[in-house]
Amino acid sequence: MTDSVRIRPAAAGDAGLILSLIRELADYEHMLKDVTATEADIRATLFAAKPSAECVIAEQGGKPAGFALFFHNYSTFLGRPGLYLEDLYVKPELRGRGIGKQLLSHLARLALERGCARFEWAVLDWNEPAIRFYKGLGAQMMEAWRINRLTGKALEKLAAS
Amino acid sequence: MTDSVRIRPAAAGDAGLILSLIRELADYEHMLKDVTATEADIRATLFAAKPSAECVIAEQGGKPAGFALFFHNYSTFLGRPGLYLEDLYVKPELRGRGIGKQLLSHLARLALERGCARFEWAVLDWNEPAIRFYKGLGAQMMEAWRINRLTGKALEKLAAS
Repeated sequence: MTDSVRIRPAAAGDAGLILSLIRELADYEHMLKDVTATEADIRATLFAAKPSAECVIAEQGGKPAGFALFFHNYSTFLGRPGLYLEDLYVKPELRGRGIGKQLLSHLARLALERGCARFEWAVLDWNEPAIRFYKGLGAQMMEAWRINRLTGKALEKLAAS
Repeated sequence: MTDSVRIRPAAAGDAGLILSLIRELADYEHMLKDVTATEADIRATLFAAKPSAECVIAEQGGKPAGFALFFHNYSTFLGRPGLYLEDLYVKPELRGRGIGKQLLSHLARLALERGCARFEWAVLDWNEPAIRFYKGLGAQMMEAWRINRLTGKALEKLAAS
């Protein structure tokens, strides 16, 4: 039963919905305490004149079923942009119906339409079902790369150096 | 002798220089064969009305010494953009003078000025001197995350599904 799924770009009126879906995702990952985003933050960053990222909402039977949030990255070796998927979420009770795959497929089309050379996202190294699923799509795991993150006081210290 | 280093935003006239620096970086990483970008690609993607990424050039004594290429990513948990450093390169003969650190510091300031909550970049897990350097800056290694990448036929197949 995936035929009634509709994927649409999020609009400013969805800021509250997006935040609630972000919070559901964080809760599912036992990371709800790490969510500091407010509805005003979402509105200001995603629906400003120059949005920081884009969001699509999946609906089934007219009700929110999940979302994907993405932005464009860039490959210097290819001299072309890529599409980076930051978050993909489908409500637990609606999983197994292919909604996640439909969101991925939607973004893959968008990536090609926009001239992107790559479609990328991060996965936790212990999430074997997800890794198997992504491998089945033909995705390559960038085994040797690790993200470094600078925040807070350390970021301020580097900026002041 | 880092006092004569100047960091400036790249302009359209730098497309050839940027490509030559990208090629130097790739050659240094034994990945020159993976560079397919042309000067026209760089111009079209970095200096269009809606650029895919931004670039700064480091100069010493008026000559190019290195570059940094970056774009903005986004954190849904924080509801704020981040700054992602895709490439950092200093010419081998000019290393050890703090030019790389000056590029990082420049980007950290830019990140804060633009309201970014994070400054992130990738490092190869075997590059221990780099890892130590980044750790010294206070960066956190995201140990458990792996990037998945979909390109070419696999990307087209997902888009068509």
